[in-house]
Parts: sequence; structure tokens; C-alpha cells
Amino acid sequence: MPSPKKAPERAPASPKKTSHADHINESYANLPTVSRRISLIILIGIIVGFIEYLITSMLSYFLSLRFEFVQQQVDSGQMQFLTMIYILPAMTLVSSVVAYLSPISAGSALPEIKGYLNGAHIPGIFGVTCLIVKAIGVTIAISCGFPVGREGPMVQVGCAVANQTMKIPFWRRALIKDTGDTGGRKEVEAEEIDKEKTLLLTIGGAAGIAAAFRSPIGGVLYMMEDMASYWNHETTVRAFGCTMTATLVYSLLLDASHNKNYEALILFEDIDHADWLTADIIWFMILAVFAGTLSVCYSELLFKFQHLRKTRTRFRSPMEKTIEVTICSFVICMIPLYIGYLFSCNVLPEDAVANNSFGGLSRFDCEEGSYNDMASLWLMGEEGAIKELYSRLDSKTNLFSVGTLASFIAIFLLLAGFTGGLAMPFGTFVPNLFMGAAFGRMFALIVQEPDWMGIKGLSSPGTYALIGAGAMLGGYTRMTITVVIMIAEASGDISIVMPLMVAVQIARWVANFLTDPYDQKMMELRRIPFLHDTVDKSRRDQTAGDVMIPTQPLNRRECLKKLRTIIEQDNLMRSAFPIIDNDGYLLGLVHGLVLESVLVQGFQDDEDDDDMLPMEPMADPSPFTVFNTFPLSKLFPLFRKLQVEHVVVLSNKGRPVGYIPRTALVDHDGGEVETNHHKAMSHLDMTGTARNIRRQSTGSNAIPVAPGSPTAKAGFESGELYDDHLDASANLRRLTDWLSPRSKSKDYVERDSSASQTSQTPTRDTAVSLHDLADHHAEESALVVKRVKNVRDSFNGFQL
Amino acid sequence: MPSPKKAPERAPASPKKTSHADHINESYANLPTVSRRISLIILIGIIVGFIEYLITSMLSYFLSLRFEFVQQQVDSGQMQFLTMIYILPAMTLVSSVVAYLSPISAGSALPEIKGYLNGAHIPGIFGVTCLIVKAIGVTIAISCGFPVGREGPMVQVGCAVANQTMKIPFWRRALIKDTGDTGGRKEVEAEEIDKEKTLLLTIGGAAGIAAAFRSPIGGVLYMMEDMASYWNHETTVRAFGCTMTATLVYSLLLDASHNKNYEALILFEDIDHADWLTADIIWFMILAVFAGTLSVCYSELLFKFQHLRKTRTRFRSPMEKTIEVTICSFVICMIPLYIGYLFSCNVLPEDAVANNSFGGLSRFDCEEGSYNDMASLWLMGEEGAIKELYSRLDSKTNLFSVGTLASFIAIFLLLAGFTGGLAMPFGTFVPNLFMGAAFGRMFALIVQEPDWMGIKGLSSPGTYALIGAGAMLGGYTRMTITVVIMIAEASGDISIVMPLMVAVQIARWVANFLTDPYDQKMMELRRIPFLHDTVDKSRRDQTAGDVMIPTQPLNRRECLKKLRTIIEQDNLMRSAFPIIDNDGYLLGLVHGLVLESVLVQGFQDDEDDDDMLPMEPMADPSPFTVFNTFPLSKLFPLFRKLQVEHVVVLSNKGRPVGYIPRTALVDHDGGEVETNHHKAMSHLDMTGTARNIRRQSTGSNAIPVAPGSPTAKAGFESGELYDDHLDASANLRRLTDWLSPRSKSKDYVERDSSASQTSQTPTRDTAVSLHDLADHHAEESALVVKRVKNVRDSFNGFQL
Repeated sequence: MPSPKKAPERAPASPKKTSHADHINESYANLPTVSRRISLIILIGIIVGFIEYLITSMLSYFLSLRFEFVQQQVDSGQMQFLTMIYILPAMTLVSSVVAYLSPISAGSALPEIKGYLNGAHIPGIFGVTCLIVKAIGVTIAISCGFPVGREGPMVQVGCAVANQTMKIPFWRRALIKDTGDTGGRKEVEAEEIDKEKTLLLTIGGAAGIAAAFRSPIGGVLYMMEDMASYWNHETTVRAFGCTMTATLVYSLLLDASHNKNYEALILFEDIDHADWLTADIIWFMILAVFAGTLSVCYSELLFKFQHLRKTRTRFRSPMEKTIEVTICSFVICMIPLYIGYLFSCNVLPEDAVANNSFGGLSRFDCEEGSYNDMASLWLMGEEGAIKELYSRLDSKTNLFSVGTLASFIAIFLLLAGFTGGLAMPFGTFVPNLFMGAAFGRMFALIVQEPDWMGIKGLSSPGTYALIGAGAMLGGYTRMTITVVIMIAEASGDISIVMPLMVAVQIARWVANFLTDPYDQKMMELRRIPFLHDTVDKSRRDQTAGDVMIPTQPLNRRECLKKLRTIIEQDNLMRSAFPIIDNDGYLLGLVHGLVLESVLVQGFQDDEDDDDMLPMEPMADPSPFTVFNTFPLSKLFPLFRKLQVEHVVVLSNKGRPVGYIPRTALVDHDGGEVETNHHKAMSHLDMTGTARNIRRQSTGSNAIPVAPGSPTAKAGFESGELYDDHLDASANLRRLTDWLSPRSKSKDYVERDSSASQTSQTPTRDTAVSLHDLADHHAEESALVVKRVKNVRDSFNGFQL
Repeated sequence: MPSPKKAPERAPASPKKTSHADHINESYANLPTVSRRISLIILIGIIVGFIEYLITSMLSYFLSLRFEFVQQQVDSGQMQFLTMIYILPAMTLVSSVVAYLSPISAGSALPEIKGYLNGAHIPGIFGVTCLIVKAIGVTIAISCGFPVGREGPMVQVGCAVANQTMKIPFWRRALIKDTGDTGGRKEVEAEEIDKEKTLLLTIGGAAGIAAAFRSPIGGVLYMMEDMASYWNHETTVRAFGCTMTATLVYSLLLDASHNKNYEALILFEDIDHADWLTADIIWFMILAVFAGTLSVCYSELLFKFQHLRKTRTRFRSPMEKTIEVTICSFVICMIPLYIGYLFSCNVLPEDAVANNSFGGLSRFDCEEGSYNDMASLWLMGEEGAIKELYSRLDSKTNLFSVGTLASFIAIFLLLAGFTGGLAMPFGTFVPNLFMGAAFGRMFALIVQEPDWMGIKGLSSPGTYALIGAGAMLGGYTRMTITVVIMIAEASGDISIVMPLMVAVQIARWVANFLTDPYDQKMMELRRIPFLHDTVDKSRRDQTAGDVMIPTQPLNRRECLKKLRTIIEQDNLMRSAFPIIDNDGYLLGLVHGLVLESVLVQGFQDDEDDDDMLPMEPMADPSPFTVFNTFPLSKLFPLFRKLQVEHVVVLSNKGRPVGYIPRTALVDHDGGEVETNHHKAMSHLDMTGTARNIRRQSTGSNAIPVAPGSPTAKAGFESGELYDDHLDASANLRRLTDWLSPRSKSKDYVERDSSASQTSQTPTRDTAVSLHDLADHHAEESALVVKRVKNVRDSFNGFQL
């Protein structure tokens, strides 16, 4: 829809109008699309901010309930813990939903999201079910007392919001760039839509984590540095807008309801400046080494338990998973009820009584005016406790004793590690920050306490807690600027940036030296295909010919019988079929799933096996091609950076001899390469969805499509791409539309006849677009079109 | 050099060792290389931090001198301005150096750097001359009173430091990754070195801007968001380390010499929290609209003057440029001497007298206890003045009157715009911040002053100054998170992030609506080739066949006479020659410059024109190939994201029919496409260096090579790539080394004979590396090798 305002009139200052300027002007020419896009991003931000607010509200309510229950039991001396058990049925419900319906909601799902954004297909990961389970589940888990965080899951929630919002018809259009009168190639459009979608998911995830940490820039950086495999400049700007909106909405909502107890839920705001001295640097560095090691302990424990739960075959039915979580919940619920008895009471600092600033501390069994420090750590809410640990007030220096902190870290570490692999949603960022802060404070107390080392002239233990938290998170995630900015933004204190940078860098080195990143190991454990952007050392001397899947190219027209044999034998998730002309030269590439769709739906009840099916209308006329001597080291960037799905391999005579699917590069495990993608799918810990995939691979009617495949791209327009069950008939409808780009006029008979005339026009040799092909081979296309017409009638017309 | 510690023993937790883990482990296996790399990055950081410290020291001294001179003249009532003229010879010297020797040092050179990092070749941009001229020149220009900043030029200084440091033999090795025993393909290595270099330059630039703003994370983000065309995850980590070091070194040096007057040079540290209220938001938004407009005025003025100076042919000799700068300097020097007389005196706030906190204010002709606000703005140093404008102390609310601020903005804007195109180094970030801060403060005074609008309950004018500065910089640069983080880091205040984000976003929209970004227009004006990552709308329906340069492929062996004819006719900057076998199928691609090197140097004094030269040893055996129907929209990402230099175009029969150079895509100006790259080069405002290029294109002995070309890649190893004059013999030596990868044994005669034997071994069909080729065609190679042997003897052996 070209706007009346044309480009060249504006900005007369420019001496020569090149396309640079046109790039900018174009966006104004498409104002309706632009405004749709902007409103979509703002909408995502608002929804994510609102969800985060709801989670915080619920958590706030539950945490204060828990606090009071514990105090009641201790005061009355009676076993009142039954009053706390109200949380158990909720927890059981959550875990049963996770175990039975939505296994993808377990854990933080960050490795899965990372894999998804890299190009792996993980069904249901951003569905509505997952969104709800995740948001409610993590709230209940934290209320119950599990040592888990709500920040990681917010990434998935944000992505899911983006995914669902994109499906609303009004905004679905915003994904499609106006291709103008000139080109309008269907396959170019489809590719752009696919990338656009990935980017919007990324932006949604950024909004999720930004709202959770109240760190708008940290959210953008997190997706950029750690999660996204694909990023462009525009994404930065748009993610910035989205995180801004989400954080603003969340903050405004919190402000509007300031009478509630949010203190315990919002990470450390309004604290004093963390002044640090040059003398501290060396101690910060030592602390960072320890914190890096501690982060490795945590990630190793998490991983070990996940691994154990995954490889152990007994007790892994959904029922048993649910029971496991219920038992754990019970134990976790009991801890704060009794742990305080093991630790002694501390007297409240004087000014605390005066200005009533220690509301979060638990009295437990102590007398009025004193508190139990261990019980307080468990009961004041994770973010609230972190805030106290960060405190740099002199009066709070000895708020928690070294012994308490050490015991707390040990218990918390074990419990937090034990949650790995439980059938419930949980995040790991806040536990990291919590342990890091506790450890940093303990470290400072040991170093500064006269009884221990007694070093004078250092900063407050609160500063050490901040550094410890940053170092621990850096060691765990292996991120750099993101951690620093997140902590600076969340603590509202940027003066700490410099020592924090040093500490994060050191903790990363230590952690890198000790073990692989947790996310990476999880991706390996769950067999999530991930494509790196550089080739592995051992494969450096390989060429395209070494990894390609040799294939017999198909001719322009193939008989149905042969095609049916092919799709029964081949692994359709990854397969592709080069189409050749009579001399054996490349005409295009047909994706296995497209071929299957046509055969299974369009020609299912047809007995005429000798019918010839034209292949070109189904094919991408310009796939990437390489010669078989092409080095693998140059192929990796091609797949990773350009998000290519298949590459056709040519012999040295320029004829197609095979193809390389993206999946051939994701794993280096020799024999597994061929079935790798498929295997990765079925190995995903998703009981429910794995069934679908299995069914699909045997040719039945549920067809998940890999993002990036032509079907996926076309599929998006109908808004069903990321659903668990891709309706096969919708798939076919899409194909029909794809085959007939001018299908708005719905009248196929008329179209066929006119197309037959155009087929006399000779094709231009140097520019064969899908449109041209569709015209040129209209006669042949008509066959396909007629076959699918009867199926097609049962759907609403596809109008975009 | 594999380390004794092997990978598989570690991290036993992982159930299956895949290459993910190996990726990490590899870096430990190459510890010597890793430590070289780390030390290189730290070294760059230290040098950049030190240079920034030197600049600050000099500036600090000159600015206090100027302050005193002005006061002396006003006090004595005599025309003492002659004492100020000491600066004029220095300024004349700077401008003459810029005009005669190093035109690339003029201005901020940011568009050039951006183009360079995108792949354009701009000779001398990171040379030693430029480094020195830039660092000293900008110091003198600011001392003189020019309304320019030192932050932008620090990017170039940082890049130049990185470029020079990379040449030190010890660290040069760090660029080369250990390829192990398996592969070791020379061409893969060379590509990696080339990317590595670009990334190190990027990192150096980040360190430069980080040190200048004392904003380590802002520095990384600036390069990531605005400057770099190529970025990977590792770059983030390394840039982070480098900016950290630079900022730390700079800060420590400043701390160590705290008795000096740095207050005026360091952007606003240790100010109070910028508290903002919800009621402010709407005013911030209005302010952002104005600030965005103001930034457009500034960039338009700058651009207009540049344009004027560039297109006007009279008065553009180096001599006249120097005189122009001298006259300007004189005028600029005079301004602070007299401007104070036009404005009235203000009484110093009471607490200012008490705690002596207004040291930067100029008394001028006022009596003791009062100050002249206009004179103060001119004399207190830009950063110092910005700090006062940001001040949120109540006592400073009316430090500058609305009238003074308005007049100041007008005069400053005109003068700052007028500097555009002057032959001296200058930056534009600080002027933006300065005007933005002044405008923000003025805006707040107007809105809040009872005499004007009198709106109550808003934040301090200092907060508005901060928002104004951010909005103005955002409108000027069109950056988002970078501006926010830079201002937050520099002001040590992160609580302002949220409204700042909103303001920056709005200012960007306004500026985008009004005009194109300044950098982009400058790149067009200077014809700097820049490759976008998406295709222009008007070219969307074009294919590779439409833009390719048709060419007659060369045979395996070609006679010298024919080759000489070819290189005389073709534009060697961009040309490439596909090599074909007897059936017309592709064997490789020879870069035009490589071919020329061999012909001009190796065979210059040879009369035997009928000798056959083997082409394969010179060729890249696996260039990227596309069919002629390949859409342009898929070609752009290929060139941009993979940094490809040439792509071979195949006919639909798989035979090479032409090639597409990177330069064919950088400009869309129809007829100019073919000569575009060359033209862009000669149009650069670089009197000295343009001569070299012209000489080179006619085949003489100075051969600048484009980064990314094989010659450039090989060339780097001898450390001479980024010099103005690439010695032709070095070029040849490199080629020789390239032709004989096992040349460590120096004895060509011996090698030739042994190679002749191996040539009997049949080449593997699917994996032809350069090594294989070199062996297989050793007989033919021997011809080349012998020819160049006599030239080669005059150089030291190339040992890496």
C-alpha cells in the first residue's frame, strides 16, 4: 500500500538521492504497516508488564501469608503446619499439568528457547498452555518456598506473549513488509516473515526478563548476548521500545498499588551508593574466584540432578513425577517452620527499632526486639533477602552471622540443585544472585572481622554482596555486559560497574576453566540441535561433499508412485529434493514436507499412480548452492548467519548431487548426523508432544514444521505455526495459496485458462521467480490445483 | 600447539562429549595463543587509557590558562588578547598537517570508520600519523575554544592503537588460530585473520570512546549498535575486557594526579540522584521533540558546511584550508574575551560562597561575589559547563538565565555547525550534549518559572538538562541503548534510565522524520561504499544475472600476453577472474590484484610473452557461487554478513559466466555501479592518498589492497596492510609464501623436485584445498616460483 507521500521530495539537503535515503523514506511510505508494528511492540510490552505485575501481586500475598503462618505456629507452639499445606494441592496441580500436558514448561526452558531461536523446532514451547502454566506454576513454587526464581521463566512468558499476539489478525499483517509493485516474490516475503517472527519472539523474551528485573537495557542485552542467534540493528531499537514499555507498565502498576508488600519482591531499589575503594579490588578478585567456583557447584548439581532424572527410567511416568514434586513441596514447606530452632537469636540493631526498617526479619522463637537470622533468610522472600544482604548500612553489618550465612549457602545450594529436573517451572537467576550475595557478605565478614582476618579499610560487606552476586551470575551464565548492566539497573547503582566488570570477567574465566556452561550442557542433554557459527576443529578439513546427503534429483515431472516411495523412505523432517531439467541441471529445491503435504492430502484417495506431478511449482527456484569441494568452515556461517535451511551441493560439473540440511551441521557425532534432528526431537523431554512427532514421521496427519522451511513460512500467515498440532488441511491450504499467488480471485477455472495463455511466453533466462514459474507451468499447476480444490473448499478463504 | 591437557577427560558429567565442549576446551588447548590475545587486548586498553589521560592533562592545563588570560585582560582593561594568540600557531600547524599530510584526520572520521568496518578500504585511516594528529589536534582545537568534542576522535585513536599494536610481532601471532594437524588450509586461516583484525579494530574503537566518556559498557554498545557491521559473541566479551582496562587505567591515572583541575574535563561525576516524577513524563516528551529538532538543525548545519566546502572548488588548496582554520581560530579565540560584556552579572548563590563550589564560574567584569553567566559557559570547559547544567541543587536553579541560555545555544549552534569540513580534527558528541543540556535547562526554566508558564511540582531543571542532552544525542546519532547507558554511566546515575529511554526514542522518531542520519549523509557525500544487509526496494526483483559483471573465464594456464592485456583493461580494485577446466567448469577464482602482483613484479622484465602461466595456484579454490537466477535479496545478506568479497555467477548449466564484486552492491546508482568502488576511493577527501590510488590503478608499484581480498589477508601477516603505501615487493613476497605453504624450508629447488613427485598422486575429487592444488600443480607452480625467486631474495625470510 504505497502512501501518497513519496520519498524524493523530502530531505532536499542530500546532494544525491541514493537508496540510503530511500531506506528511511520507505518506512514512512508504509506508515500503516509501521504503526501496526509499533503498536504490536507496545502491546507486547504492556501485556508482559501486566503479567509480571500479576505474578508479583500473587507472590506478595502468598509470601506474607507464609510469614504469618510460621510465626503463628512458633508462637502457639502447636503443630499448625497443616495450615500451610494449602499450598500442596496447588503444587501438585502445577506439577501434574507440567508432567502430563506441558513438559516443556518444566525448568526455565532457556536452553530450549535458545535452541528455538537458533532454528530448532520445539513444539508447543510458546503456546498458551505453556504461558499459563509457567506464570502460575512459578508463583506457586516460590510461594511454597522452593529455592527458585521467577526471572528465567519470564523469558518464556514474554516469548509466548509475543507469539500469541502476532496471531491476532490486525497485527499479523504488520509482519509482512510491503513489497511494492516491482517484485513481490512470494518466497522472499515468506523468508522475511519468518525472520520477523523470530525477532519478535526475541523482543518478547527481552520484555519478559526486563520487567522481571526492572532492567530495560539488561533485558535487551540478555537476549542479544546470550539467547539470540540472529540479530539486526532494527531489533535493538524495537527491543528497546518493548522492554521500555514493559518496565514502565510494571513500575506504574506497582506505584499505583504501593500499599502492598512489594518490598520483598522487587530486587533492591533505592539503596545507598556502593562506594568501593582501590584497596577492595584485590579482594573482589579473590571473591570472584570463589563465586565462580560456587556457581559451577550450583550448575553442576542442577545438571547432575537433571541428568539423573532423565537417564533413570524408573519412576518417570507423569504420575510419579507429580508425586515426586508433591513430596518435595512438603519437605520444602517444612524447612522454614523448623530451621530457625537450630540457630540462635540476634538482637535487632537500634535504629531498626527506631525507624521500623526491618519489617522483613522474622522474630521466630526469639523474644521481642530480636530476630532469628536463619529464619529471616528463608521467610523474607528471595529478593527481599538479597536486598538486606546488599545493604551497606553500618547498622546492618552484622545482620547475619558468618555461621548462619555459611549454613544457609550449603542448604540452599543443595536444595536449589535438587530442583533440577523436577516437573515444575523454575528459574535459576535469583538463586544465583541470592547465593552470590550471601557468599559475598560472608566473605567480607571473614576478611574484615577482627576475630578472623581483620583487614581494615575495606568497603562495606554490602558492596561485597553485590560483587559476589554479579560474579556468581556471571560464572553461571557466562555473560558479561548483561550481568553488569542488570545488576546496575536493578540496584539503581552504576558506580559499582567497574569492579563488577572485573569480578564478572574473573568468575567467567574460572567457570570456563572448570566446566562447560550449564545451558550448553543442558542443550546436549536434551539433544537440542544448535548450530554454531564456526566449524569445529576436527571438521575443519571436511568439505560439503563429505557431509552432504547424496540424493537422486527429481525430474521436472515425476510420477506419483515414485514420489510416494520416496517420502516413505526418507526422513521428511530434514529432507529436500533438488529438481533438475532434462540435462541434469538445477531448477529448484522442494522441501520434503511440502512434497508430503501435496501427496498425503491432495492425492491420498487417488489410485492413478502413474499420474505425473509437476515439481517446479512446489520448489524454491533459487536455493543456495555450493560445489562439493566447498570447505565446511565456510558453510557454517552460511547456515548460521543467513538462517538457511538447506544447501544444494553441486558436482564439479555443476549438477546437483546432494543436499546439506541444517541438521547435518548441528551435531558432530558421526553416525548420528543423519537422524540427528529427528532424534533430537524425540529425545526432548516432552511426553505429550513427542507422540505427535512420532506419528508425523510415519506419515499421518499431524505435521509440525521446522521454522525456516517453506511450509513454516507460509504456515505462519494462518497463525498456526507455533501450535502443537499443525492441522494438515491448513498445511494444504497454505500450499494451495502458495502455488497460486494470485489466488485472491478464488476462481481457479478462470485462472487456469488465462494462465495457459501466458505459458506461451518464453521465460526470461536470467530471472525465474516463483511467479514466472507458476505462470509458465500453469498447465501443470492446474493438475495440482484441481486435486486440492475439493479439500480447499472446506476452509474459509485465506485473505491477507 | 596442542596442550598436554586433553579435552575428553574433563567434565565427566556430560553424558556425551560433543563439539560444544570441544569448542571451549580448544581455547585451553591453545593457551599460548589465548594468553597472547588477552595480553593484546589489555595492552590496547592500557595505551588507549593512557592517551586519553594525556589529552585530558593537556586540556586541563590549557583551559585553566585560557580562563586566567581572559580574567587578566578584563581586570587590567588592556587589550591583552595577544597573550592568547599563542594558540594560533599551534592551530595553524595542526590544520596544515591535516590539510597537507593527513586529510583523513579531519573531522571525527566516524563515517569513514563505519565504512571501513563495513569493508571499504580507506588508506591511512588508522596510521600512526593520523593517531598523533588526531590526539594532539583535538586537544589544541578545544583549548582554542572551538565548540567541538574530543570523544568522537577517540574512536579513531582507539582503532589506530589497535591497528599499530597488532603489528608488533609478538601479538601478530595471536591473530592466527592454531589449525592443528588436521586441516591448516591457508585460505581459511587468512579469512579468519582478516575477520580477527576487523574485530580488534572494533574493540580498539570501543576502548577509545569508553575511556573518553568513562563509560565502559557504553563503549561496547556504541561499536555494537552504531559502528560495526560484523560482530560476534566473542567480540562482546573481548571488547568488554578492553573497555574495562582502558577506563580503569584512565580513572586510576586521574586519581593518582587528583590535584589538577580535571573537574572541567570529566563529564559529570558524583552528582545527586536525578529524581523524576510521573508528572514530568509529558514534559520530557515535549522536550524530546524540541531536542530532536535541535539535533537535526545541528547535523544539517554541519552537513551543509561540509557540503559547501567540498563542492566549492575555489579556496580548497591545502594552503587555503590552513588559512581558513587560522582565521577561524582567531575569531573563536576572541569570543570569550568580549562576549561577557554583552550579558549582565549575576550574584553568586550564598552557599556557593560558603563551600567554594563554583570555582568554574567566571567573574569577568563583575564585582567580587558575582559572576557573568555567559562568560562562564564559554570559559569553564565543555564538560565542566555540562556538569553545572545538570546540577540539581536548588541553589543552582537560576545559575544561568533563560536569555543567556537561549543566546548561548544560538551562537554555539552556528559556530559548531560552521566547523563542519574545516581541516582539523573534531568530535560532535560533546557539542550535542552541551546544547541539549542547555536547552533542557532552558526548557525547564520556561515551564517552571512563575513569570512564564509557572507549572508546579516538576523535577529540578537539572533533570531536564540530562534528558535534553540524551534526547539531543539520540536524535543526532539515532542510537538507542548506547545513548542511555552512556549518559547513565557518565553521570553515575541510573535512576534516570526510564524517562531517558522514552526521550531518546521520541527524539529519534522526530529526527528520522525530518532527515537522514548525519553519518549516512556524510558517507554519501564522501562516497564511502557501504553495504546494507537488506536489498533496496527498487532492486528487489533483480537477480544475480542482472548485476553480475560478465567475464570470460581464464583457462588453467594462460599466456602472459593475454593476461597483460586483461589487467590493463580491467578495474583491478574489484575484478576477479574465474578459472575453468577444459570443459568450462569452475576451478577457482583469482583476485585481480593477485594476478597483477604476479605479472607486474614477477614477470616485468620478461620478454617471453608466450609463456604459459598456471592460474590455479593463485586461485581461491572454493569461492561462493550462485546461479544467475539467484535473487538479489538473498545476495545482500551473503555479502554483508559473511564478509564475502566476490561471488562467482554460474549459468544455468553450471558454468561460470561472470562474477559479482562486493562493490556492485554498495551503490544503487545505475551507471556508476561498475566504477563505483574506484570512484568512491578517488572521491574521498584525501588529497595525499588519492594520488596513490590513482597511481596504483594505472599499474605502478603502490598497491593498496581492499580488506577481505586474498592479498589483504595474506598481506596482514607482514603487518603492512593498513599502511598508506603497500610495498609491491612485500606484496609479492606474500604471494610467494602463499603459493608455497611449506616454504619454511626456504629451499625452492629441493621443494620443486619433491613436489614433482607428489604431483603423480591423484587429487581427491571432493576436497581440493589450496595445499592439494599447490602440490598437484607443483610443476606449474615451479614456473611462478622460479620467476619470483630473484625478487624474493632481497627480503628477510617470512617467519611466523
